[in-house]
Amino acid sequence: MSWFYAFDLFGVAVFAITGALMAGRKSMDLFGVLVIAIVTSLGGGTLRDVILGRHPVSWIGNDLYILVASLAAIGTVLWVRFTQPINERGLLVADAFGLAVFTVLGTQVALAHDVPVSAAVIMGVMTGVAGGVMRDIICNEIPLIFHKEIYATACIAGALIYIALQQLQLGTDLASILAMLAVLGIRLAAIRWHLELPRFHLLDREPHDSDK
Amino acid sequence: MSWFYAFDLFGVAVFAITGALMAGRKSMDLFGVLVIAIVTSLGGGTLRDVILGRHPVSWIGNDLYILVASLAAIGTVLWVRFTQPINERGLLVADAFGLAVFTVLGTQVALAHDVPVSAAVIMGVMTGVAGGVMRDIICNEIPLIFHKEIYATACIAGALIYIALQQLQLGTDLASILAMLAVLGIRLAAIRWHLELPRFHLLDREPHDSDK
Amino acid sequence: MSWFYAFDLFGVAVFAITGALMAGRKSMDLFGVLVIAIVTSLGGGTLRDVILGRHPVSWIGNDLYILVASLAAIGTVLWVRFTQPINERGLLVADAFGLAVFTVLGTQVALAHDVPVSAAVIMGVMTGVAGGVMRDIICNEIPLIFHKEIYATACIAGALIYIALQQLQLGTDLASILAMLAVLGIRLAAIRWHLELPRFHLLDREPHDSDK
Repeated sequence: MSWFYAFDLFGVAVFAITGALMAGRKSMDLFGVLVIAIVTSLGGGTLRDVILGRHPVSWIGNDLYILVASLAAIGTVLWVRFTQPINERGLLVADAFGLAVFTVLGTQVALAHDVPVSAAVIMGVMTGVAGGVMRDIICNEIPLIFHKEIYATACIAGALIYIALQQLQLGTDLASILAMLAVLGIRLAAIRWHLELPRFHLLDREPHDSDK
Repeated sequence: MSWFYAFDLFGVAVFAITGALMAGRKSMDLFGVLVIAIVTSLGGGTLRDVILGRHPVSWIGNDLYILVASLAAIGTVLWVRFTQPINERGLLVADAFGLAVFTVLGTQVALAHDVPVSAAVIMGVMTGVAGGVMRDIICNEIPLIFHKEIYATACIAGALIYIALQQLQLGTDLASILAMLAVLGIRLAAIRWHLELPRFHLLDREPHDSDK
Repeated sequence: MSWFYAFDLFGVAVFAITGALMAGRKSMDLFGVLVIAIVTSLGGGTLRDVILGRHPVSWIGNDLYILVASLAAIGTVLWVRFTQPINERGLLVADAFGLAVFTVLGTQVALAHDVPVSAAVIMGVMTGVAGGVMRDIICNEIPLIFHKEIYATACIAGALIYIALQQLQLGTDLASILAMLAVLGIRLAAIRWHLELPRFHLLDREPHDSDK
């Protein structure tokens, strides 16, 4: 098992935990917890594969993804019920790590399909954030990545850095590590100093919207 | 026309009715009623086919699916307007029947694509419940299958039973009938005695969520 | 560059503007504005391509789509911040034009994949309206096309007219222009006289819904 595959499974587990916690905040039943955990951890990669026309999608043909996501979800429920609350700080750092892995992985997969740079960046970002967006949509929340601390911007930077380093012939392993460190560094800095992108406020009701 | 195909069309009609009723509760116009009915009845199978890379998806190439869903939606509007309210009890039983058919059908399709057992179960459940989840998301509701009486659990049991019976070489017809009876039995028992899965309640606001 | 391709890019820009404005009403940050703009303008075509199994999807392999959508989104933010409010009337007309282009384009693509008429109409409507539906779902609104002035009905008419004219051997250019004029005419008339489809109101709470 390569180190990158181990990182990937770790990312799946972390994202599943954030999904299970959101399901708990919505008082879902155990099936709901499992579904939200699986969608959060595997939804981004599935959307990427479907848009790229890459079949079978990652988790079909490898039981381990579903298994890890399910165990992480069940473990979260048991942990919260029988021990102390989740360590917020630790989960945030783990989530930033998972985000870094997923972004680089998604960019790699897209480049292997010979897509142009703009599409490769979008695929990298999509792999990193789309699972969380699906989780929020199913749970009837406006996706938090669209109006909170810098999150997706770290993915954009990581995808661009990976692509640039690849073209410098640095080797996949070194390029992956440096790009992941970039995502992790930006994300942890954003958490530490509450960095946000500027927002676009539009206060007046605009009647044209009612027609679309 | 095989008996299973007839069952499939019956399931499409029933799911379209539940979609049209939900659209009516949201005061949608006739186009909205049609869309929600079609998404509810064909959305699960479409998602399954797209993830499996199975083209063309089921309802392309067979006009009958769209036709049945549309007629069921229009019939629902006319029925509610001109006669008595919908018979709740009857609709619940019909819905359980449609769920049983869709689950077994989805599991069959997945197995025909040589996916592992975990993916076949997920495809069976997805075929049964994803249309209803899409209906609830479009209508801005938290999907009810995640916090109500046992519903998806019946699908999981049905998919597992179908796979087990297939491996016992029981023949597709007999395996299908027994698996459908399992889904139907569990679902009707859940309706009758209000069986629920345990829920996962998480009351404290967790700030880490605001970062994902 | 054909005139139709120019129209297509114009439609992408207009839909991106409506997406950026909606993101602004939800106070999203700049990343959110970009995502909603891209999803609104390219989501319908992407869904159509994924369901048809057409790879690569339209915007992969042609950077111009993403570029136009992004520039339109950024331009919208700058325009609103530094000059006067958006001209509602003008945007409505531009949106109707984009809708006409997307509908005819989607119908053409579907027919090129040899799907039956019912599926071609659905693909045309989907290309025209699904991006806006995704925008509304992500922004946690019930999609407005399901309960406002005639919008999708114009797409249905346009797709049917295009298919009929094609079968009369009128030539793609002439059929496209006439079908677009039909969409545009119906839509502008609906805006001008506030035409609506009849709605389906269902007031009583129906307990069967809680089980699906």
